[in-house]
Amino acid sequence: MSSTAGQVIKCKAAVAWEANKPLVIEEVEVAPPGAGEVRLKILYTALCHTDVYFWEAKGQTPLFPRIFGHEAGGIVESVGEGVTHLKEGDHALPVFTGECGECPHCKSEESNMCDLLRINTDRGVMIHDGKARFSINGQPIYHFVGTSTFSQYTVVHAGCVAKVDPAAPLDKICVLSCGICTGFGATVNVAKPKPGSSVAIFGLGAVGLSAAEGARVSGASRIIGVDLNSSRFELAKKFGVTEFVNPKDHDKPVQEVIAEMTNGGVDRAVECTGSIQAMISAFECVHDGWGVAVLVGVPNKDDAFKTHPMNFLNERTLKGTFYGNYKPRTDLPKVVDMYMRKELELEKFLTHSVSLSEINKAFDYMLKGESIRCIIRMED
Amino acid sequence: MSSTAGQVIKCKAAVAWEANKPLVIEEVEVAPPGAGEVRLKILYTALCHTDVYFWEAKGQTPLFPRIFGHEAGGIVESVGEGVTHLKEGDHALPVFTGECGECPHCKSEESNMCDLLRINTDRGVMIHDGKARFSINGQPIYHFVGTSTFSQYTVVHAGCVAKVDPAAPLDKICVLSCGICTGFGATVNVAKPKPGSSVAIFGLGAVGLSAAEGARVSGASRIIGVDLNSSRFELAKKFGVTEFVNPKDHDKPVQEVIAEMTNGGVDRAVECTGSIQAMISAFECVHDGWGVAVLVGVPNKDDAFKTHPMNFLNERTLKGTFYGNYKPRTDLPKVVDMYMRKELELEKFLTHSVSLSEINKAFDYMLKGESIRCIIRMED
Repeated sequence: MSSTAGQVIKCKAAVAWEANKPLVIEEVEVAPPGAGEVRLKILYTALCHTDVYFWEAKGQTPLFPRIFGHEAGGIVESVGEGVTHLKEGDHALPVFTGECGECPHCKSEESNMCDLLRINTDRGVMIHDGKARFSINGQPIYHFVGTSTFSQYTVVHAGCVAKVDPAAPLDKICVLSCGICTGFGATVNVAKPKPGSSVAIFGLGAVGLSAAEGARVSGASRIIGVDLNSSRFELAKKFGVTEFVNPKDHDKPVQEVIAEMTNGGVDRAVECTGSIQAMISAFECVHDGWGVAVLVGVPNKDDAFKTHPMNFLNERTLKGTFYGNYKPRTDLPKVVDMYMRKELELEKFLTHSVSLSEINKAFDYMLKGESIRCIIRMED
Repeated sequence: MSSTAGQVIKCKAAVAWEANKPLVIEEVEVAPPGAGEVRLKILYTALCHTDVYFWEAKGQTPLFPRIFGHEAGGIVESVGEGVTHLKEGDHALPVFTGECGECPHCKSEESNMCDLLRINTDRGVMIHDGKARFSINGQPIYHFVGTSTFSQYTVVHAGCVAKVDPAAPLDKICVLSCGICTGFGATVNVAKPKPGSSVAIFGLGAVGLSAAEGARVSGASRIIGVDLNSSRFELAKKFGVTEFVNPKDHDKPVQEVIAEMTNGGVDRAVECTGSIQAMISAFECVHDGWGVAVLVGVPNKDDAFKTHPMNFLNERTLKGTFYGNYKPRTDLPKVVDMYMRKELELEKFLTHSVSLSEINKAFDYMLKGESIRCIIRMED
């Protein structure tokens, strides 16, 4: 057992005291894990757009002070009562959603939307006792999506922690905790393009590029990238994108442009922007008879998806996915193994790297659209 | 070769001279089949709601005089040039859609929406030469969906004719040409409920009852029938329906009623009414994580399907189907074989039977909602 097990750990964390203000590196106290919980030493974390979205506190109830961060890799420091699948020293990826193993979703082969541990962006405390494990001079600091990886130590529900191959480099595989799996899984687990098929990817951020990587790995022969920012097109080629469409360059709906390019529509489309118009275009650009469109991007609260029902009756399919349909504990170790076998490339997603003390630079890179993923080195 | 091959055949047919007026039994002349066509002697036909819809000529361009009818069984009288998969004497079912075997849809395992022979309700002539094969004293009588089975002889594109087991009774299997396959296939080929699962069926007409039959055959443990007419519920039990919901009996949306009955939603839903509100309800009543809704009913031209996109992102799937995803020539003989093995029951769909001279009675039964299927005996 580690010398720190059962003790409060003092460590550094990047705390968001209020919306839209730079994070502040603070010394925080991290309580020991409660029953069913794990305390992780975070070695590497990455910044995802969802952190930025909740830090900006647009369109949701603000909850501050809070420790953001949910893409990360670390090592189990200690485990709470009743935790059997993890032990001190295990290499692990915390995930913003979980797998209790007991609910109808966990027991279904088709779902990964665990009733107990499904993402909850409003909750800032642990499920077990409704309390935060972080504090500064007795003031609780709230959690974010159950992970809060912008801290050198964090406490996570054990159902949200995937044990992974200790040979896998945590500074690379940490990005599998969220965006990369979300996009890659949307393609390989849900859209399932056949070799030689055509795939349209809406949005060429980290998730969209991961979806393109999924299409490349699946053997798609045409991968059409759609983005309002043409500067992304050059980069996207590395991820298998073969053709580009900027909707701004056309005076007709992009679904019509794509249908003309592909003799009636693409075989598969994956929507990674969250724009309702892109969702409708992604659905309407798939071929009748067999086309499948998959929604990944999260819409606004008041959006309405609207289309003529004949678009469905002509044998098109529309599906949504959450975290690429991966079950965190069951499936994430297998994705790590794919990376280790070089079937999935991660390095090309990792455009920047900063120390914890420079974490606000990661926000700048993302807000300027310069980075795909910026790794934050937690021990530096 | 039959003695009539190559000759014009005079026979009886029920002609619709104008919208909404009783059909008139006339002696018509039926030209020999052209290249790629087949002339069938129709022995039994059934009335489907689509015949009535186009006879009423609501919401579409009227085309009269016309011979309706598209659910039928008969025997090949002669074949035109180039037809190789059918010969005189074959037992056959004509189908309102076809399978050319050459187009991308026919070559795809996933689609049955043949580019060449896909249903066309506006066309009243043969594709080959743009002419009708029916006439009365030289006046052309238009075809309907390429089948026109309310005639003792009809000419059909060979790609729209399924050759079936000659041991199968044509007075029973004739109903597989349209409604029964449409509903049954929507469930077994598209919704694919697992044994023990729950299925909601919207609309308990012939198509909905066939969808219920598909759920029963698939081993669904709960089959929830939804219809605005409670008198259909008793009958529906024969088709495996275990529970009934009449949306009129509730002051909240039927999708909420179903979600409460099923702890969050049904595993599968099949929409067989064509009402846009029922389509939305059918989608929104399936369980998150794994629910699949299938649209079968044909909407109005100006309908819009509208839902919150989060309903998709929570891992629900929406698909549409056409003719139960069956390829007419390839798959229909297999459905006939299922009937012969008693895996699919047809007798319970056949509520009425009339002679050709009484064909207008079949319209009355359907308009009054009394019949599921009324068989018309063409030789009586």
